[in-house]
Amino acid sequence: MPNDQLKEAIEVTNSELVIPPHTNHFGTIFGGKVLELMDITGAMAAMRFANEDVVTASIDAVDFKKPIQVGDIIELKGKVIHTARTSMVVKVDLFRVDKNERHRDFSCRGYLVFVAITPDGKAKEVPTLKVTTDEDKKNWAIGEKIKQRAKERQIRDADEV
Amino acid sequence: MPNDQLKEAIEVTNSELVIPPHTNHFGTIFGGKVLELMDITGAMAAMRFANEDVVTASIDAVDFKKPIQVGDIIELKGKVIHTARTSMVVKVDLFRVDKNERHRDFSCRGYLVFVAITPDGKAKEVPTLKVTTDEDKKNWAIGEKIKQRAKERQIRDADEV
Amino acid sequence: MPNDQLKEAIEVTNSELVIPPHTNHFGTIFGGKVLELMDITGAMAAMRFANEDVVTASIDAVDFKKPIQVGDIIELKGKVIHTARTSMVVKVDLFRVDKNERHRDFSCRGYLVFVAITPDGKAKEVPTLKVTTDEDKKNWAIGEKIKQRAKERQIRDADEV
Amino acid sequence: MPNDQLKEAIEVTNSELVIPPHTNHFGTIFGGKVLELMDITGAMAAMRFANEDVVTASIDAVDFKKPIQVGDIIELKGKVIHTARTSMVVKVDLFRVDKNERHRDFSCRGYLVFVAITPDGKAKEVPTLKVTTDEDKKNWAIGEKIKQRAKERQIRDADEV
Amino acid sequence: MPNDQLKEAIEVTNSELVIPPHTNHFGTIFGGKVLELMDITGAMAAMRFANEDVVTASIDAVDFKKPIQVGDIIELKGKVIHTARTSMVVKVDLFRVDKNERHRDFSCRGYLVFVAITPDGKAKEVPTLKVTTDEDKKNWAIGEKIKQRAKERQIRDADEV
Amino acid sequence: MPNDQLKEAIEVTNSELVIPPHTNHFGTIFGGKVLELMDITGAMAAMRFANEDVVTASIDAVDFKKPIQVGDIIELKGKVIHTARTSMVVKVDLFRVDKNERHRDFSCRGYLVFVAITPDGKAKEVPTLKVTTDEDKKNWAIGEKIKQRAKERQIRDADEV
Repeated sequence: MPNDQLKEAIEVTNSELVIPPHTNHFGTIFGGKVLELMDITGAMAAMRFANEDVVTASIDAVDFKKPIQVGDIIELKGKVIHTARTSMVVKVDLFRVDKNERHRDFSCRGYLVFVAITPDGKAKEVPTLKVTTDEDKKNWAIGEKIKQRAKERQIRDADEV
Repeated sequence: MPNDQLKEAIEVTNSELVIPPHTNHFGTIFGGKVLELMDITGAMAAMRFANEDVVTASIDAVDFKKPIQVGDIIELKGKVIHTARTSMVVKVDLFRVDKNERHRDFSCRGYLVFVAITPDGKAKEVPTLKVTTDEDKKNWAIGEKIKQRAKERQIRDADEV
Repeated sequence: MPNDQLKEAIEVTNSELVIPPHTNHFGTIFGGKVLELMDITGAMAAMRFANEDVVTASIDAVDFKKPIQVGDIIELKGKVIHTARTSMVVKVDLFRVDKNERHRDFSCRGYLVFVAITPDGKAKEVPTLKVTTDEDKKNWAIGEKIKQRAKERQIRDADEV
Repeated sequence: MPNDQLKEAIEVTNSELVIPPHTNHFGTIFGGKVLELMDITGAMAAMRFANEDVVTASIDAVDFKKPIQVGDIIELKGKVIHTARTSMVVKVDLFRVDKNERHRDFSCRGYLVFVAITPDGKAKEVPTLKVTTDEDKKNWAIGEKIKQRAKERQIRDADEV
Repeated sequence: MPNDQLKEAIEVTNSELVIPPHTNHFGTIFGGKVLELMDITGAMAAMRFANEDVVTASIDAVDFKKPIQVGDIIELKGKVIHTARTSMVVKVDLFRVDKNERHRDFSCRGYLVFVAITPDGKAKEVPTLKVTTDEDKKNWAIGEKIKQRAKERQIRDADEV
Repeated sequence: MPNDQLKEAIEVTNSELVIPPHTNHFGTIFGGKVLELMDITGAMAAMRFANEDVVTASIDAVDFKKPIQVGDIIELKGKVIHTARTSMVVKVDLFRVDKNERHRDFSCRGYLVFVAITPDGKAKEVPTLKVTTDEDKKNWAIGEKIKQRAKERQIRDADEV
């Protein structure tokens, strides 16, 4: 396919102030709330790339490294890094701006796969991602691994369930 | 004050997918939800500038020009444009990415004044904004007008109440 | 128009207990939450006047004078004070009943403009407000100013944007 | 006790627009949401009467007579009708303003018992309700029955559990 | 009716971690939140029994015996105990697992009546409950009393209103 | 360690009715909402096992196989399957009871690692899981693999970031 028919991805940014409803009774954000924010940020990145509605197909493993507290600001950045016929891999990075220093640190990362769908819920083709820079190529390779791991899980699950 | 002691403002970006809880029963976002998102985005911009907690002192008039629907994505951008001793004026622009075209349009704008506070709720000094570009200067002048209008409201309110 | 065809406005009252989800991590209500409550209270006053669904067209500037804390009760009162062909100006007063004294004080005020709409989103004519008392007349005059300021903003915005 | 040491009750009004998060997937408000609104309205009436924080001790049976739909406005009115040493009976009436006619109808009623508490959670004495009109006396008698039924439930529960 | 045409009830279990949005500013769960959880748990038990959507017709009196605090886990168990032509009585028991001991105690109980409805909101017939054990029979008898008390309230309300 | 000092795990069950706030504008549950429910269910299982507060350390990959719609009931079951000194692996299975058939199907599964913490946020020792049945042993082996994969991610991430 000629490169000029490919589409560039938009990075979607989402900032959230961590407020009491996001946290447990000792003031630490729920892991599940972080995952929910990753999913919605990833979905917006995929929607803006595909110009379609999307549903989440899978999320790769996520490790929560630094505790996030009430009063912190979190910043999520989501971008499509890989495309297949109807699916997109989105990388979502979460940064924490802590409430005392307002210093911004990388906190954790998620890779999610979204499928574009028509209004009646059928999978729909998406544009092919334009890959230009070395960063783009490295990300595309990670996206390949994400898809590969998802395929391996199908075999693994059959074994475990 | 020597210019190198001044502080540059960070633009805070906040993207939101418009979901049923944000909308009324005919699928249009509540004006109040837009204002809430403007306030929280503005607060994060002020918090990151001042390295302090903040409270909202006032919001200038806001006009809702284009209807925003469930399924649209909205993107808010907030930035400190003016500083006084303990207060900051933040400009918040809201863009709508409509669900059909995924076209991004300017939708509406708010100017909010925040005051930095100490943990026990007292007003606290904030850094002075670094003003460099023509855009910065134009924004600073707008900030001056926002503060001026707030002063005029004090007189007007005495008249009306 | 003969005065007996005009319609009187109903004052809508809305009481809310300020709970943790309404406040930041230091227990003060978000300005944006106050604006959201003003908008919904104003919308109910406009809906009950017009017997139609409504959308928010604009909100005039709001100044937050007294901090409102978790555990306080707030009471909002909204009433249509001015009508044009398809729009209504609603005045919303917010009172704070503080958690220690249970003393009720005026806290802040908003003026919002709502437009009545048909189920398919078109602007719809509203009844004309019946203006009888001196209070009614004073409020109508304020409503005129609110509309005038909104028109002036159209010119101002063209200048600023 | 001389009547002038008694305290009059304030009627607390709470209006709510029924929005999608309040309703199930076929657009009817959850019974549980109605009960939650009755509880919070009753609590505010009791807090404003006692000048203290309160906890809910019991709710008498509630019958949901008319379906309430998304887009309706509901209006709750809560008032203390009976007092004992540390407890108050609050009557909460719920009216529905339907979205088509904007006609206001009585919908259902709840009687709740609240206990005033100190900051460390101990029961605290409340003022005695001033009973003047025939309406007040009738309500007081109902409050007596509510307390009586609560006592009977203690016996009944011992039988059932 | 031959007993093999009757239907057994499924017990629905619902666990909830008590988080700040469920509690007032002194960390105790709202009675109204407990009622909302009882209603939704009861509705799920009725939906799974009837294979239909349901609406809440009434809730019998509920007494809140032990305070539930932020950080506790609550466990609700709902089960259909009685059926009539289109209605079901559901018993909902709430247990509290306190945050310090993680000891599980019975906390309070609700009896709710649900009516099965068609997509256009008409009452619909439900299966007849299979009653086998002594526990089933005791519960059925309680269900009878719940229905009887609801009928008595119709007479009582006519007297009180 | 003698087997009678080991602790058995309690299976925590959590049922949820899928309502409009859980879904996007075309009525399908958000993947992020499913993950949030998995996290909270897993946290309750870990809290009840450890008798301590917990924080989420990681979530293994999750695949969303069947779409879940507004009006469906979902049932989550969480149980500790593996323990280390301060951490627990919890398996969370999600079942969907669809709104038309009320048929209950396995939908998806998550494995989460939780760490027990003291009130001041330090990791705390947890009991050792009692492993008795073949099912227990199979689950423990899966838990081992979950921990192994988490260690491999530390190496992988160093490579990718």
